[in-house]
Amino acid sequence: MDTGGTAWLMISAALVLFMTPGLALFYGGMVKEKSVVSMMMLSFGALGLVAVLWILYGYNMSSVSGDSFFQFAGDPFSDFALTNLIQDSNATAGAAYGGTFAIITTALISGAIADRAKFGSWMLFAGIFATFVYFPVAAWVWGGGWIMQLGTQLGFEGIEVIDYAGGTAVHINAGAAALALALVLGKRVGFAKGITQPHNVPLVLLGTAILWFGWFGFNVGAAWGDLGGSEFPGPGLLFINTIAAPAAGILGWIMVEKLRNGKATSIGAASGAIAGLVAITPACAVLTPGWALLLGLVSGGLCAFAIELKFKLGFDDSLDVVGLHLVGGLVGSIWPGLFAFDTGLFTGGGVEQLIVQLIASLGVLLYSFGVSFLVAWAIQKTIGFRVRHEDEVAGVDVVVHGETGYALSR
Amino acid sequence: MDTGGTAWLMISAALVLFMTPGLALFYGGMVKEKSVVSMMMLSFGALGLVAVLWILYGYNMSSVSGDSFFQFAGDPFSDFALTNLIQDSNATAGAAYGGTFAIITTALISGAIADRAKFGSWMLFAGIFATFVYFPVAAWVWGGGWIMQLGTQLGFEGIEVIDYAGGTAVHINAGAAALALALVLGKRVGFAKGITQPHNVPLVLLGTAILWFGWFGFNVGAAWGDLGGSEFPGPGLLFINTIAAPAAGILGWIMVEKLRNGKATSIGAASGAIAGLVAITPACAVLTPGWALLLGLVSGGLCAFAIELKFKLGFDDSLDVVGLHLVGGLVGSIWPGLFAFDTGLFTGGGVEQLIVQLIASLGVLLYSFGVSFLVAWAIQKTIGFRVRHEDEVAGVDVVVHGETGYALSR
Amino acid sequence: MDTGGTAWLMISAALVLFMTPGLALFYGGMVKEKSVVSMMMLSFGALGLVAVLWILYGYNMSSVSGDSFFQFAGDPFSDFALTNLIQDSNATAGAAYGGTFAIITTALISGAIADRAKFGSWMLFAGIFATFVYFPVAAWVWGGGWIMQLGTQLGFEGIEVIDYAGGTAVHINAGAAALALALVLGKRVGFAKGITQPHNVPLVLLGTAILWFGWFGFNVGAAWGDLGGSEFPGPGLLFINTIAAPAAGILGWIMVEKLRNGKATSIGAASGAIAGLVAITPACAVLTPGWALLLGLVSGGLCAFAIELKFKLGFDDSLDVVGLHLVGGLVGSIWPGLFAFDTGLFTGGGVEQLIVQLIASLGVLLYSFGVSFLVAWAIQKTIGFRVRHEDEVAGVDVVVHGETGYALSR
Repeated sequence: MDTGGTAWLMISAALVLFMTPGLALFYGGMVKEKSVVSMMMLSFGALGLVAVLWILYGYNMSSVSGDSFFQFAGDPFSDFALTNLIQDSNATAGAAYGGTFAIITTALISGAIADRAKFGSWMLFAGIFATFVYFPVAAWVWGGGWIMQLGTQLGFEGIEVIDYAGGTAVHINAGAAALALALVLGKRVGFAKGITQPHNVPLVLLGTAILWFGWFGFNVGAAWGDLGGSEFPGPGLLFINTIAAPAAGILGWIMVEKLRNGKATSIGAASGAIAGLVAITPACAVLTPGWALLLGLVSGGLCAFAIELKFKLGFDDSLDVVGLHLVGGLVGSIWPGLFAFDTGLFTGGGVEQLIVQLIASLGVLLYSFGVSFLVAWAIQKTIGFRVRHEDEVAGVDVVVHGETGYALSR
Repeated sequence: MDTGGTAWLMISAALVLFMTPGLALFYGGMVKEKSVVSMMMLSFGALGLVAVLWILYGYNMSSVSGDSFFQFAGDPFSDFALTNLIQDSNATAGAAYGGTFAIITTALISGAIADRAKFGSWMLFAGIFATFVYFPVAAWVWGGGWIMQLGTQLGFEGIEVIDYAGGTAVHINAGAAALALALVLGKRVGFAKGITQPHNVPLVLLGTAILWFGWFGFNVGAAWGDLGGSEFPGPGLLFINTIAAPAAGILGWIMVEKLRNGKATSIGAASGAIAGLVAITPACAVLTPGWALLLGLVSGGLCAFAIELKFKLGFDDSLDVVGLHLVGGLVGSIWPGLFAFDTGLFTGGGVEQLIVQLIASLGVLLYSFGVSFLVAWAIQKTIGFRVRHEDEVAGVDVVVHGETGYALSR
Repeated sequence: MDTGGTAWLMISAALVLFMTPGLALFYGGMVKEKSVVSMMMLSFGALGLVAVLWILYGYNMSSVSGDSFFQFAGDPFSDFALTNLIQDSNATAGAAYGGTFAIITTALISGAIADRAKFGSWMLFAGIFATFVYFPVAAWVWGGGWIMQLGTQLGFEGIEVIDYAGGTAVHINAGAAALALALVLGKRVGFAKGITQPHNVPLVLLGTAILWFGWFGFNVGAAWGDLGGSEFPGPGLLFINTIAAPAAGILGWIMVEKLRNGKATSIGAASGAIAGLVAITPACAVLTPGWALLLGLVSGGLCAFAIELKFKLGFDDSLDVVGLHLVGGLVGSIWPGLFAFDTGLFTGGGVEQLIVQLIASLGVLLYSFGVSFLVAWAIQKTIGFRVRHEDEVAGVDVVVHGETGYALSR
């Protein structure tokens, strides 16, 4: 019995679970002091809720059976609350692992609605998003659904969509939903460049560190069954690429900053690491470390520009979920179409890999954006999603949660 | 050779060791700014001291041999400083793992004496508690002692006390000692509802995150020998239950808050996660994920009420060790008597499981409370346990440690 | 196939990578508020840069082939960007693991130049140090180089330099380079005892916790191939010693403080843990837990004195890289010469082990100091290493990075 694989699967699940509180700190440090509690609670609330939903029925929804090309999702009640699954220990650990992806994908979205969201409305959105967007999309990408079948359906021999750890299912998904929420909730009071000066930089860097640390579970956990294999690529490649891309992402981002403003910032370094991690997520199994370095450099440099789109286009994606996860996710999802071993356009393949990568990316983007927009809009029109103007100015922490982030004597 | 089991055992030990600094941050963030250093040092001091005592003689004490029903503890000098044990690598790693439980159990107690304890007196208490309470109780619960033999001794066929990872040995134990110390040290100056407004909420949530992350090692580490087994229940069940209960605990706690005060708080979310984790600790191997969700929900909701007992009954358990660990530990330890696979009162068994759960819980509760009370009382009457009134008002950090938690320029 | 070994190797690499951000927080919390961003960026910048260099050519340099006694380093271009290595998954994971050592060794140095370094100049230094010091020294100590061959070359039968996890290659190396940089950059404005009152103690303790947690990977990761072995010593010994020494280090340091100043400090407890960890690093495989406790106690107590050297000798090693890593590294590297199983002077051996330990320690010390001094001096004389006086007084964060660590409303 492969006990090493089991150990790796479990530690990977623990690592990915740890990422969501890490995200709470990453996001929490970036906002103003008066909304740090609210910001962190958007992640912690999603953590509690999505974990429960996943165990109740989400896991069941995340794979489809049968041969038909399009199925929306699996039957949510096929094994309610996993009562039968637990007979198989590794499958149960695998379900735990999968749940941590559902949690963080949902939590990621919250970066778009800093400073101005009602907690209860967010929780409602989070539950609906998980149920009608994440769980089905996970089935499409990893659970036998249409994205997994895409290459075959199009008659592209030997071509499958490459999304190892969630470029489409996680990052494009979260980024598209974030854009939808930013549009529905509208701009914060005083929205302008510089509005998001972080109130606590060490907290942001700590969050970055936890995210990177957890990302080893995120990117390499699914290889738990291949730890002893001699087939290429093994987990070692996925692992080192999860160092290569974010390291180069740091350099890419701060070099852009240095060239543009003369100063490399710590928030830039943190953002560059995340940009590299996002981009390598789908591609970690199909690139040499050299290409992973380049991907990280490009992603870091590009996202450093992409985060300014919101000021130009006028949507208040407060903490750059679009700039990092949607753009970085697109870069990382399209990249294998160009540079994957054997099948990339410039690495021995034709245009087929690029085509399926684009279709998968666009499919998830449009679906996630559309449903998220509708749901958020419906919430805004009924119970309201955004807090009142005066509450936003006063600070959501006290108004919504009755708490302040700090009680420092000076 | 089962290398995967070894890997899991070691990473679990590392995870549980990490929990004690996590606890230091969880506790540290909750107190006033002027006692954050002191609060954290209670954990760090216990970490240093109990680790040394465990290696010197505690491990030896934590298992008993022979057939007699009651033995207090193993011979502390049977293998002083583990000189012989190290020939067996896995046994040595297992000793390291066991030590991390001794450390955190002791550190947990310190939450009851925030803002007002002398560091040296705490260190003395910690050493005595570890030696005369934790090490023996560990032998009773896991090392062949009377609690392990209870079902057999009572003639209950097929019934053993269920305490997988420490509902009695860790949580009831620490919670009872905390109650004793709260009584001996007395109330803080100005004790009243709202006295413990946390000075640093992100620190509390970070501590919560580290505790949860480490709890995977805490609850699942002991299954290191079963990673390849096909017997039910495997580690996967323990693992997913360590997500299910705290996630539901978050929801349980913040729903109670919402209903009572109209506002869900971040400290409530953090406390709910801990309440769920505490409750699932003894029961993680004997519940389906569905029952684990319910246990978490109940524990979270119940502890949200339990933390108000201290104001009604007038003991200053400052950071709610009683409300979380004693109450949550009792909930989790009694629960299997009602709902364990096959043997629970409502799940196919008789009353026997419930009886042994109650006896074990009460036995540890009374022993830990009694010894802790006597020891703390003796310390208070001799060298003093509580700082002087004026030092407490001035802040223990400067008086006891000569430090301040922060030097912020504003 | 040894899947457990693979799992342990990968989690160890993740743990050691996590140490560098942990170091950033440890260092960042210790400085003044106005230079926390700069302090953390020295680590994050090194993380990005050294990871990239390691993947490009550093791994290739870190082992030598052939029989000649002295070779400077391996061919940097033998497998540029690891394109061939990735065929072997475990070797690739091993390369990732090795890279994390290069990163943290470089980052450690930055503690000596707090508050006054130009970021770009540091990055230049970091790249040169990694290339011309760390990569070759790693080859000398672990990659078949002259230090590995030393015992044999001297004709000492059965004697090899003992440096399990980096007493010479990491700690003496970083500490000597730190001394060089402290001398070249000179003293901070207002250098005097008490200048480094930490601006954020919880951040320092958090950093300590992450470092300790990661150190299990640091010290035990290289045993990934021995997890199933029955030969002594197994990984369990390395693991428990990584608890024993830092725990005793805490006690050693705070007892010295208590005796000298009457007060045990939290920064002392944190420093004591690090001192114990540094000292056990080279020696973790050759001491019983009892001797490891003593080593930790001695290292903690001694380093508590050593950090005052800088005031007596007048070099501004701002965050005590010399006092902790050079002194602790020397203690831990010389200790096996006295007390290693069988070969120590007082444990059954002759003077040979001590001799090779001293030669290895001095060799690395002098080489690292010399090259670092020259490089730093050249940087200072050309583009400048130290910021201008007025920028240092104003605070490097704003001047160099355009950021402030905190934006707190009070």
